[in-house]
Amino acid sequence: MQLGRNRIEALADGVFAVAMTLLVLDIKVPELQPPLATSELPLKLLALWPKFLSYTISFVILGVYWVGHHVQLSFIRRADRPLLWINILFLLWVALVPFSTALLSEYANTRLAIAIYGANLIAIGLTLALHWWYATTKRRHVDPDIDSGLVRGAMHRTLMAPLVYILAIVLSFLHTEVSLALYALVPILYILPGRIDIHWGGRHQGKSKTDQAGEK
Amino acid sequence: MQLGRNRIEALADGVFAVAMTLLVLDIKVPELQPPLATSELPLKLLALWPKFLSYTISFVILGVYWVGHHVQLSFIRRADRPLLWINILFLLWVALVPFSTALLSEYANTRLAIAIYGANLIAIGLTLALHWWYATTKRRHVDPDIDSGLVRGAMHRTLMAPLVYILAIVLSFLHTEVSLALYALVPILYILPGRIDIHWGGRHQGKSKTDQAGEK
Amino acid sequence: MQLGRNRIEALADGVFAVAMTLLVLDIKVPELQPPLATSELPLKLLALWPKFLSYTISFVILGVYWVGHHVQLSFIRRADRPLLWINILFLLWVALVPFSTALLSEYANTRLAIAIYGANLIAIGLTLALHWWYATTKRRHVDPDIDSGLVRGAMHRTLMAPLVYILAIVLSFLHTEVSLALYALVPILYILPGRIDIHWGGRHQGKSKTDQAGEK
Amino acid sequence: MQLGRNRIEALADGVFAVAMTLLVLDIKVPELQPPLATSELPLKLLALWPKFLSYTISFVILGVYWVGHHVQLSFIRRADRPLLWINILFLLWVALVPFSTALLSEYANTRLAIAIYGANLIAIGLTLALHWWYATTKRRHVDPDIDSGLVRGAMHRTLMAPLVYILAIVLSFLHTEVSLALYALVPILYILPGRIDIHWGGRHQGKSKTDQAGEK
Repeated sequence: MQLGRNRIEALADGVFAVAMTLLVLDIKVPELQPPLATSELPLKLLALWPKFLSYTISFVILGVYWVGHHVQLSFIRRADRPLLWINILFLLWVALVPFSTALLSEYANTRLAIAIYGANLIAIGLTLALHWWYATTKRRHVDPDIDSGLVRGAMHRTLMAPLVYILAIVLSFLHTEVSLALYALVPILYILPGRIDIHWGGRHQGKSKTDQAGEK
Repeated sequence: MQLGRNRIEALADGVFAVAMTLLVLDIKVPELQPPLATSELPLKLLALWPKFLSYTISFVILGVYWVGHHVQLSFIRRADRPLLWINILFLLWVALVPFSTALLSEYANTRLAIAIYGANLIAIGLTLALHWWYATTKRRHVDPDIDSGLVRGAMHRTLMAPLVYILAIVLSFLHTEVSLALYALVPILYILPGRIDIHWGGRHQGKSKTDQAGEK
Repeated sequence: MQLGRNRIEALADGVFAVAMTLLVLDIKVPELQPPLATSELPLKLLALWPKFLSYTISFVILGVYWVGHHVQLSFIRRADRPLLWINILFLLWVALVPFSTALLSEYANTRLAIAIYGANLIAIGLTLALHWWYATTKRRHVDPDIDSGLVRGAMHRTLMAPLVYILAIVLSFLHTEVSLALYALVPILYILPGRIDIHWGGRHQGKSKTDQAGEK
Repeated sequence: MQLGRNRIEALADGVFAVAMTLLVLDIKVPELQPPLATSELPLKLLALWPKFLSYTISFVILGVYWVGHHVQLSFIRRADRPLLWINILFLLWVALVPFSTALLSEYANTRLAIAIYGANLIAIGLTLALHWWYATTKRRHVDPDIDSGLVRGAMHRTLMAPLVYILAIVLSFLHTEVSLALYALVPILYILPGRIDIHWGGRHQGKSKTDQAGEK
C-alpha cells in the first residue's frame, strides 16, 4: 500500500507552522501596575529584546529547515518505513525548538542554554542529513540517474549548519556573544543562492491553468 | 528542482490558522472566589471588552492579509529564492500579531502600544507590497502579458493599509481613541469590492467533477 | 482572478484543527504538594469532570460544524468577496470556542456562562445559515439545477442547532442542568443520518488509483 | 453529495500536528533568581528528564497512530456518516494526549497517572480498530476483493498496542517503572516492518509529472 508523499508533507507543514507560531508565546506582554503603565512600559518592552531576537533567529532557521526538508522530499520518488520514521524523528526535534528558544532567550549568557539550543539545531540538521543519506545511498529512493554532484552538494549544504553550531558551542567557552552571533549568521548562509535553485512549477502549472481558462 | 507553490501556501495557511486561533488565548476566563461568582462575573466579563475588540480587529485584519497573500500567489507563475524568503519574512510578522494584539488590548490607551501594534501591521503590509513589487518588476514571476493596470491597482490596494496605520500612529498623539477607530476601519476598506475580483474556480472545477461522475 | 476553494478549505481546516486541539489546554494537570500526591490526586482529577465534559461537547460540536461547513462548500461552484468574508466571520466565531468553553467549564452553574457559550454556538450556526442562504439565493453560487428540496433541507438542518441553543438559554432560568443537557444533546442530532448523505469520492477516485497502478 | 477523503485527512493532519507540537508546552523553562542562574540551571534542567522522556514517547506514539490512521484511510474507497464520526471520535482522543502526557510526566510514579495515560492511548487504539472493523466488515468501505489476510493482519497490528497498554496498567500494581518501560517500548514495535509495507506513490506519481512535462 502507499502512503502519499503529500501526507508526510502535510504533517510536516503543520508541525512547522505550529512550532513557528508557538515561538511568539514566549514573548509575554509585560504586566504593570496601572499608575506606572505609561512611564515604565518602554523600558519593560526594551528589556524584551532577547526574546524578539531569539524569536527572529528561530523563526528564520525553522524556515531554512522547512525549505531544506521540502527540497529533499521533492527529489524522493518512493519511500519505506525507515524513511518515514526519519521524518518523524526530524519533526520531533523541530517541535522542541519553542522550548530551546525560550531557554536561550531566558539564559542567553549561560553556556548551558547556548549548548542546548545549538544541540537542538544540530539534531535537526543531522537528522535531515541522515534523511538525505538514507534516501540517496544506492539511489534507494531517488531517480537512479540523479546528478551525483547534486547529491553531494545538497549533503554539504545540509551539513554546513551543524558545523557552524558546533563551532558556536565551542566558542561559547570564550565569549557567549560570539555564539549568539553565529546562531544569527546561519540563516543568512542559507538565504544566499545555492547549487539547487528553487523555483516552483510555474511553466506547465501556469499553462494548464491558462488552458483551463481558455476552455471556459 | 521545484518547490511547489502549494507548499508555501500550506505553510502560510498553517501559520495564519494558528496565529488567528492563538489570538483567543489572550482572552482569559476571569478568576473569582466562589461566593462572588454569580454577582461579579458580569462586570468582570464586561471589563474584557478591549480583549474582544482587539481579537476581532486582529482576526479580521489577518483574514484580509491572508486573502491578499493568496491573491498575489495566484498570479505568480514561477519563483526563486528571494521570493521564498520574502514569504517567510511575511509569515514572521504575521506570527507576531498575537503578541502585538495582546499588548494593545492590555495598554489600549498607551501611545507606545498603539504604535507597536500599528508597526506590526505596517511590516506585514510593506512585506506584502515588496512581495508584489519583486514578483511583478520586469514581469519577473508573473505572466509577461499581465494587465499593468491590474499590477498597479493591486499595489495601491496593498499600500492602502500601511498608509492608514501610519496615520493612526501619528493621530495617537492627539487622541488614542482615533487610532483605535482607524485600526477597526481598515478591514472594512478591504471587505469592499476591488478591481481584482475574487471568485474561485467553480465552472471548470465543477464541470470536471460532473464529468468524472458521468464517466462512472 | 481566482482564489481556489481549496484555500478557504485549508484555512478552515487549520482553524478547526487548532481550535479543537486548544480546547485541551483548559484541562490543567492538578498541582499538589509532593507528600499528598498519591492520596489527593484521584479527588482532584474527579473534580475536573466539568472540564472533560465541556471538552467533549465542544470538540464534537466543532466536528459537527466542520462537517456542515465542508458539506456546504462542496455544493458551491463559484464565489465572490461577500461569500469569502462570511467564511472568515464563521471562522472568527469558531476560534472563540476555546474561550467560551473554558468559561462554561469554570462557571457551569451560572446562567451568564451558559448564555455566552450558547451565544457563541448560535453565532456559528447562524453564520453558517447565512453562508448557505447567500450561496443559494437565486442559485448565486450553486448549480442552477440543484434540487430545491435539498437546499431547504440543508437550511433546516443548519438552523436546528441554533434553535436548540436558544431553548437551552431560555431554560437556564429554570434549571442550568437542563441547558447543559441540551448542549450535550445537539451533537447527537447531527450524528444521526440526514437527507444529505455524506460519502466520499471513492468509486472514481479508487478507480483512477487502480488504473494508475494498472498502468504501472 | 461527497465529502472528499482529503478533507478528513486535512483535519486529522492538523489535529495531529497541533497535538504533537503542543506537547512541548509541558516542558517549561526553569525560573531561577538571577544570582543562582549559572550554578543551578544544570540541576533544574536535569530534573526535567521525565518531561523530555514523556514528550518523546508521546510524540512517537502519536506518529505511530498518525501513520496507522493514514494507512487505513488509504484503503477506504467510500465512507458514510458513522465512519466520519468514528474519525472525529478518534481525533477527540488524540487531542487529549497533551493532557495525559502532562499528567504522566508530573506524577510518573503514581498508578493513577499511569492508568489514565494508558487509558488515553487504549482509547485511541480501540477507536482505530473500530474504524477498521467498521470499514472492512462485509467489505463495506474497502475494495470487495481486498486480501482478507491483509484485513486481519492490519487488525492484529492495530490491537497490539492496546494489549500492551492493558498489560502496562496491570503491571503498574507491581512496579510503576515496568509500566513506563512498556509505554516506551510500544513505538518500537510499530517502527519495525509489518505485513503492510508503506511506500509512497513515487513511480507513477513521478511518471505522471514527467508526462505532464512531456506534454508541454
